[in-house]
Amino acid sequence: MKDTRIEAGRLRAFMERVYEKEGFTAEQARRIADVLMQADLFGIESHGAQRMMYYHENIASGSVDVSAQAEIVRQTPVSALVDGHFAMGHLTAVTAMELAIEKAKHTGVGMVAVRNSSHYGIAGYYPLMAAREGLAAFSMTNTGPIMVPTFGREMMLGTNPLAFCMPADPYPFWFDASTTVVTLGKVEVYNKRGKPMPEGWTIDGQGHICRDAHAMNASILAGEPGGILPLGGEGETHSGHKGYGLAIMVEALTGVLAQGMVSPDMCGAHGDHTCHFFLAFDPAMFGDAKDIRDRMSGYLKRLRESEKAPGYARIYTPGEKAHEAMADRLANGVPVEANTLLEMQQIARELGVEGL
Amino acid sequence: MKDTRIEAGRLRAFMERVYEKEGFTAEQARRIADVLMQADLFGIESHGAQRMMYYHENIASGSVDVSAQAEIVRQTPVSALVDGHFAMGHLTAVTAMELAIEKAKHTGVGMVAVRNSSHYGIAGYYPLMAAREGLAAFSMTNTGPIMVPTFGREMMLGTNPLAFCMPADPYPFWFDASTTVVTLGKVEVYNKRGKPMPEGWTIDGQGHICRDAHAMNASILAGEPGGILPLGGEGETHSGHKGYGLAIMVEALTGVLAQGMVSPDMCGAHGDHTCHFFLAFDPAMFGDAKDIRDRMSGYLKRLRESEKAPGYARIYTPGEKAHEAMADRLANGVPVEANTLLEMQQIARELGVEGL
Repeated sequence: MKDTRIEAGRLRAFMERVYEKEGFTAEQARRIADVLMQADLFGIESHGAQRMMYYHENIASGSVDVSAQAEIVRQTPVSALVDGHFAMGHLTAVTAMELAIEKAKHTGVGMVAVRNSSHYGIAGYYPLMAAREGLAAFSMTNTGPIMVPTFGREMMLGTNPLAFCMPADPYPFWFDASTTVVTLGKVEVYNKRGKPMPEGWTIDGQGHICRDAHAMNASILAGEPGGILPLGGEGETHSGHKGYGLAIMVEALTGVLAQGMVSPDMCGAHGDHTCHFFLAFDPAMFGDAKDIRDRMSGYLKRLRESEKAPGYARIYTPGEKAHEAMADRLANGVPVEANTLLEMQQIARELGVEGL
Repeated sequence: MKDTRIEAGRLRAFMERVYEKEGFTAEQARRIADVLMQADLFGIESHGAQRMMYYHENIASGSVDVSAQAEIVRQTPVSALVDGHFAMGHLTAVTAMELAIEKAKHTGVGMVAVRNSSHYGIAGYYPLMAAREGLAAFSMTNTGPIMVPTFGREMMLGTNPLAFCMPADPYPFWFDASTTVVTLGKVEVYNKRGKPMPEGWTIDGQGHICRDAHAMNASILAGEPGGILPLGGEGETHSGHKGYGLAIMVEALTGVLAQGMVSPDMCGAHGDHTCHFFLAFDPAMFGDAKDIRDRMSGYLKRLRESEKAPGYARIYTPGEKAHEAMADRLANGVPVEANTLLEMQQIARELGVEGL
């Protein structure tokens, strides 16, 4: 079914209505909506309005605590450990990144580890906050178990994304990627279309390559053996051990460093007790900020202008597709799937707020 | 031909003799030899004694300046910019990581960007220095051009490795990986064996998949179009754009941040004006150091003990193979290829030092 285009302001206002009615303050509702809208504007529909039902259910079940406040457990001029107390992940993460930014402005660098949070939306939202202030930044999170180790067949790691942003023109260098070969969203798309997945994405409970998206989707959601392979695929031939190692690195900087839960202990593919890591720093510590920014912009431009492989008219640099999607969506509305639209109307009815 | 096993102490003493005779001080020679020995002990032969001829030629040609000293150009309590002045990369990198460690001990974190360096050996050596002091650390470097962008066919990025180390028992979590699908060393191995490479490693000058290791090796060394693909392979099906994005991230934190040279401007696959990035931090800022270390060790143990895929008796965690190789090499000697042995004897003759 064709997606419906919804004017961005209308979608944002609906999200704010919903989160206020869920029990958040107007400012909190604005913050949550801003993270979700950024995903939808960037064309990452899996992390925008599409996740509202998931959050709605987590709030209803109490796994997300609407009244909880993130707490700074310990800090130094360059660091903080934050306990989310199971508040909405987006709110805890915004608070944590604001803290990292504030520290980076004072000392040059801010590192913040977060435990007892919940799903925080797109990892890349938070480094963008820093880039707007002229800073470079990282964001990482662990998630519910979904990735099998190299040579393994149990889900022992999350999608464990790593996001990084550095100021540049006409828009920042913006990298946001899971350390799995693909995300669950891709498996879901193949499941909906009834198409076999490419080889090298997932393995089944016996450890054999699995191309059946329907079976894989079901087994992941049930937490059964088998799962998604690391970036680089099966075994070591195409360096699957590198994606696996990157995922452990993310786990080390989130679940381990924040002394929270590691991925295999979480329930559900998205994870309910996630831990995050944020690092912001000021490039001006190393030289003239404008010069560094211009060098970044210039290098990205050279990449885009380099020779293309046959059949490709463009080479993209990370963040380019997202910013082009945003321009389109601000002009023509945000495409929302029919099923997501039904879910939003259901949430509106249940909460007694005005629908879209 | 069978490798010769050389007793580790003898190999180290030879390296120290060579570097003293090249014009370095005894302490500098010890430092260079320690980086090379770590690679050979860890079983990463491509970065140990095998590189001595390359360094010998760089010193002879003057592209490495034996008398140069790394200089701190600017610094804050948490950061430094270092100019290597084309000194031996290992020496500049050890100085830079020592500085990052010192800052991390005082403030909790130290970030050091380095420009005008040269090939610094294995990226993973430097985070190990930090781990020995109970710190976690990153090391990254750009290199000569070798990687093509997603949808491109010109070498616009280096192998651009990322290394990360975090204290754990019985040895640290040690991750060291290029952001290419494979390194040039793997292409060289297939070239020597006359075997076709697996699909998805390299593309030729026209942008088509290339399995001919001989042709690819020659074209890379000549700096011609075509090159090695990013981690994740060709196009976006297996997320080659993620490896490509990670490589740009490394370029942003090295060549761009240090205001030095970016990969496509360097001569030769290894690179002669490389830039590095080091970050060390103290996990104790976030909690009890012993508790965090134990959590790391425990998580790694769970990964190793999780269910194996068919045909595999073990699941490794990053650093395990390297530490097992080291135990073997310390007991039984370091395997050195016949060709490398000949090169070492040639260096000894040219310098007039005692051979192996």
